[in-house]
Amino acid sequence: MRVDVAFIPAESVAAPTGIVIDVIRATSTICQALAAGYTRVFCTAEVEEARLLKSELEGVTLGGERLGVRIDGFDLGNSPDEYLEPRSPVLAMSTTNGTRAIVAAAERCERVLIGSLLNLDALVGAACLHDEDVVLVCAGVKGAFALDDAYVAGVIAERLGCERTDAAEAAVRLASSYATAEDAFRQSRSGRNLINNGPELEADIPRCARSSVLYVVPRFVGMHGVAAEIAAA
Amino acid sequence: MRVDVAFIPAESVAAPTGIVIDVIRATSTICQALAAGYTRVFCTAEVEEARLLKSELEGVTLGGERLGVRIDGFDLGNSPDEYLEPRSPVLAMSTTNGTRAIVAAAERCERVLIGSLLNLDALVGAACLHDEDVVLVCAGVKGAFALDDAYVAGVIAERLGCERTDAAEAAVRLASSYATAEDAFRQSRSGRNLINNGPELEADIPRCARSSVLYVVPRFVGMHGVAAEIAAA
Repeated sequence: MRVDVAFIPAESVAAPTGIVIDVIRATSTICQALAAGYTRVFCTAEVEEARLLKSELEGVTLGGERLGVRIDGFDLGNSPDEYLEPRSPVLAMSTTNGTRAIVAAAERCERVLIGSLLNLDALVGAACLHDEDVVLVCAGVKGAFALDDAYVAGVIAERLGCERTDAAEAAVRLASSYATAEDAFRQSRSGRNLINNGPELEADIPRCARSSVLYVVPRFVGMHGVAAEIAAA
Repeated sequence: MRVDVAFIPAESVAAPTGIVIDVIRATSTICQALAAGYTRVFCTAEVEEARLLKSELEGVTLGGERLGVRIDGFDLGNSPDEYLEPRSPVLAMSTTNGTRAIVAAAERCERVLIGSLLNLDALVGAACLHDEDVVLVCAGVKGAFALDDAYVAGVIAERLGCERTDAAEAAVRLASSYATAEDAFRQSRSGRNLINNGPELEADIPRCARSSVLYVVPRFVGMHGVAAEIAAA
């Protein structure tokens, strides 16, 4: 068993198991939503695609934000804290970076899991269950490297305890260079965006930095049109 | 002034100054060759393209290797040690990863410099002279992340002493996690390939790990057909 890391979704690395990481905040929120009782999460890159799902399906809550602000007409934003109780069976989330990474991983992996720190133990357990090579796909920001996602990739790679590629070794060393996840997140561009948008959003940094507080393994089920459908494994 | 890092050439990051790194061994060898007295180096992705240059131009030495072995009919391999004295005014090198990274950088940067540890001081001096944003483009291996190139990116980013993107911060932290460049290179896939090919090639690891022993700044001049032409700035 070997672990590799794609620091950006465009990197064409393949493995039987893919784990997508968009820790601030899409994949943290997906984990929270499924743990809370949503049965399915549809991820779309575009806002209009999420709205279309709400008009097509019954019982859909719309979640997502752009530039730190809840999208006009949406029910919820993009904070895990807004997903502690389900409002309906289905959640449709608009998340550009996260959706792109999930779709990229689905093209190259037999199974795609959703990773965050919140579900670390469950995720590592699920990945090891198959005893097959793993690639950690960082969503990044607009196609570029994101420190927060790379940090989490390093934490997961270290926990998997198997052979590492050059990229996985670099991620492990990066993660080891921070005293805490919160330190890493605060230094990242995504974390600084939250900080610059006020104390309510800043509170998502320690929230997403909690480790193994949710026992859930979100898994990509398939495409529903242009939306990536996620359910608990 | 800000420094960014593209860990793979496919990452579309742009800046006025680009520095291409393929430290084991193409960019180390280019630095050595120009410092020794070759006036121009042509880099080609394909072996046949280098052979074609030799048939077209006067006074061309052919250099390059595949899988650790000198290419059939070529004058020299890919060790900096083979380039201590010029054999002709022009060197044509076949280097797949290095050429791809140079061409990728040239598409996005006004000026492209060639980086290694051998020319570290000269390179940092040249990059700071322009006082403009810099992107460090790692050649990687077959499009994938390479620990040795990322390490050197971290050393250069730290030395530039300017604002860092997430990727540059990660590279600096990666570099800081190793006691020496040789340690990093030995752990990398490229370094292990040299080690596995015998003591003669393994000797290139400490050779490429020397810092600031050559005062040369190789610069991309332009394309000559499909070959990237490099000369000392």
